[in-house]
Amino acid sequence: MDDVRKYLQSQREQFEADLFELLRIPSVSADPAFAGDVQRGAAWLADHLRSFGLPAEVIPTAGHPLVYAETPPVPGAPVALVYGHYDVQPPDPLDEWTSPAFEPTVRDGNVYARGATDDKGQMLTHVNSVQAWLETVGKLPLQVKLLIEGEEEVGSEHLEAFLAENKDKLACDCVVVSDTAQFAPGVPAITYGLRGITYFELKLTGPSQDLHSGVFGGSVANPAIALAKMLAGLIDADGRVTIPGFYDDVAPLTDAERAEFAALPFDEPKFAQQLGVDALDGEAGFTTLERRWARPTFDVNGLTSGYQGEGAKTVLPARASAKFSFRLVPNQDPAKIAAGLKQRLAELLPAGIKMDLREFHGAPGVVMPLDSPYLQAAARAIETGFDRRPVFIREGGSIPIVNTFAEALDADVLLLGWGQNDDNPHSPNEKFSLADFHRGIAASAALWHELAAIDN
Amino acid sequence: MDDVRKYLQSQREQFEADLFELLRIPSVSADPAFAGDVQRGAAWLADHLRSFGLPAEVIPTAGHPLVYAETPPVPGAPVALVYGHYDVQPPDPLDEWTSPAFEPTVRDGNVYARGATDDKGQMLTHVNSVQAWLETVGKLPLQVKLLIEGEEEVGSEHLEAFLAENKDKLACDCVVVSDTAQFAPGVPAITYGLRGITYFELKLTGPSQDLHSGVFGGSVANPAIALAKMLAGLIDADGRVTIPGFYDDVAPLTDAERAEFAALPFDEPKFAQQLGVDALDGEAGFTTLERRWARPTFDVNGLTSGYQGEGAKTVLPARASAKFSFRLVPNQDPAKIAAGLKQRLAELLPAGIKMDLREFHGAPGVVMPLDSPYLQAAARAIETGFDRRPVFIREGGSIPIVNTFAEALDADVLLLGWGQNDDNPHSPNEKFSLADFHRGIAASAALWHELAAIDN
Repeated sequence: MDDVRKYLQSQREQFEADLFELLRIPSVSADPAFAGDVQRGAAWLADHLRSFGLPAEVIPTAGHPLVYAETPPVPGAPVALVYGHYDVQPPDPLDEWTSPAFEPTVRDGNVYARGATDDKGQMLTHVNSVQAWLETVGKLPLQVKLLIEGEEEVGSEHLEAFLAENKDKLACDCVVVSDTAQFAPGVPAITYGLRGITYFELKLTGPSQDLHSGVFGGSVANPAIALAKMLAGLIDADGRVTIPGFYDDVAPLTDAERAEFAALPFDEPKFAQQLGVDALDGEAGFTTLERRWARPTFDVNGLTSGYQGEGAKTVLPARASAKFSFRLVPNQDPAKIAAGLKQRLAELLPAGIKMDLREFHGAPGVVMPLDSPYLQAAARAIETGFDRRPVFIREGGSIPIVNTFAEALDADVLLLGWGQNDDNPHSPNEKFSLADFHRGIAASAALWHELAAIDN
Repeated sequence: MDDVRKYLQSQREQFEADLFELLRIPSVSADPAFAGDVQRGAAWLADHLRSFGLPAEVIPTAGHPLVYAETPPVPGAPVALVYGHYDVQPPDPLDEWTSPAFEPTVRDGNVYARGATDDKGQMLTHVNSVQAWLETVGKLPLQVKLLIEGEEEVGSEHLEAFLAENKDKLACDCVVVSDTAQFAPGVPAITYGLRGITYFELKLTGPSQDLHSGVFGGSVANPAIALAKMLAGLIDADGRVTIPGFYDDVAPLTDAERAEFAALPFDEPKFAQQLGVDALDGEAGFTTLERRWARPTFDVNGLTSGYQGEGAKTVLPARASAKFSFRLVPNQDPAKIAAGLKQRLAELLPAGIKMDLREFHGAPGVVMPLDSPYLQAAARAIETGFDRRPVFIREGGSIPIVNTFAEALDADVLLLGWGQNDDNPHSPNEKFSLADFHRGIAASAALWHELAAIDN
């Protein structure tokens, strides 16, 4: 490990240069206009893996390609599969970025760029640690498989089929994912629970075309008002979702978990201040950490209707639409939620309005066993890389394929987040701490050692 | 009048060519990008008036210019002032136009273009009738003043000051405005009542920037949900506006008016079918004509928030905004409504959200005296031009400056609409019947004769 550590130290600038190169590729998976850049992201990654002797494949899918590579098998040692993604969220709204979204810029020790933390920077820590073992020891103490996809931000549509068709190729004892955050700066964490998600787009149509609001206003239902009423009707004054059966399967927090969360160093007024709000808001009866980590939610993600340009246009719009989503917790079933939603929207739909509901990706929430030897090995590796034992926390976001991995490969999933909560992963000015980038590489390098030492 | 009639007959093609030329100028007053085209519209109109010997002025304002011209005074005869506008609504959404918005195209006897009916085509009927008198009789039997503005679609911001400062120049006995519709094809109408309007934009701000809906969802108020709840909270299940005092000053319909409206040939199921809706909707307790003409309304004109592009983005948006408006009836006061709105929105504003309310143009509703000799003269002129006596109706739209004219110049306002209700004045595929265009010119030519015969 000494040679590995020295190598990591010597390669800091090169690792950063590599990261910046990947960040310059606008691999936005949601927008077809960027399809060529997503391809370019995959090609860059495969070339990079080959540059230190790891045969890498770019595997086409019906959507964006996967990148796959593996180190040689090590009999008697476990097999670790690293999952990450090289695709990124859309960068909108562009005018709120201090420096351009795809021009990585270092300020105060952080690199700012779309994908810095989610997930190019975090994903590369494992690539770099593998490189370090190969370039020094010449081999890894266990077999590491790297599976990096290009569709995480659009629901990993084609990954599930790939997993199902490649169970032997991908067989492993644990899956390593770095796409979450530490609890706070200097407080590394292992995330043992994730929320799920189910995402929808509701399109309402009233009159067959936009109408003059003076000539027709008051005589025909306005789709934008109908949309407002229907969305408002999905959540009550206590912040509880009104979909029938929505809370039926929600796994309640244990008293131990509530106590553990309450003991974490979390300051609600400071949190509100960081977000720029004068009051927090959410489901009645729960703390902010509980609301974020272990309670389901309803969020409207986008609204569109009528005239949105400069000035005033007196139009009664023909259409109104919303994108919205529910964060789910164990053991809510996305399909059951979708069925309840349809029932509730049908109740809320006013006369004279037609609706069309589109369902995007969905994934259930997940909780990992806290006593897994792989989780405990990861905790030791993090202590090596970060000089502090991690806390065990949950996370409000979704990594939809975590469930898929756990089910398809029957493996424990280790969520080792190197990011920070203010990294703005889906917002303007996304960033990643370069110090955490290097600590993550060191922790990853130690992880291969710790996992190899598990009595398999 | 015979020579005038013959002249009108001979000039049909030329009048259409002139109209198409004006329609090709995209004089969109709401959008600063079109400011040069608005100027061009004014210049075209002034040049056109000069082409048949009428000295015309382009009068600059702090916004878009006015065009003014007048025929010589006729002692003993009344003075008529024609008001119209050469500016047009924005053409969005552009992809719903069958032929381009600013390329006038004739189909089935209608000319399709933005501004065809509102108000370039209707306004030009009076320009053409003045031309006909001048080119045949050599003079008009009364003085006609033409005041054509470029800011009607943005609230006529600078007209009021101009009227106040030019009362002598504009002094008249009646104001003639053709910016409304006939009751139906073949059923010409004089509009004796108009609704007013008050228009707002509400901007809500939650967190200081867009957030990841997984990491933060459920712990902070979502501005798009807040907007939905606030808009939904402005109108109740009976379609009644919940602003305090909103209905206090509403002039109720008389039994005679309700009977008159009920007697008009109006088919509610056919109307619903024309609009493409399977049910009509509006304030409980009123017929569709009553709702459109004589009851106040609430309409959302536009919604904007979060991610509106392709695919799904899991964002908790920092901002959400709506453009919305109320149609007002006599004797509601826009200022009082605005004050009540602010009070109601303050009640509806959730914790953690800041609001900013912008007030656009407003105008009260108006009703004209049915026994005015000018109105009766207009009815005779319409009978000449359209071969049928007009019905007396109201109109749901606003011509905000009608009130201003009535007050500033102490004159009756004659609303002589040559359009049809399906002309799509603020929608894609705006049109104007060329037959009605020529009937309007004939009626206008007769109007100068009928008005001159009034015992002044």
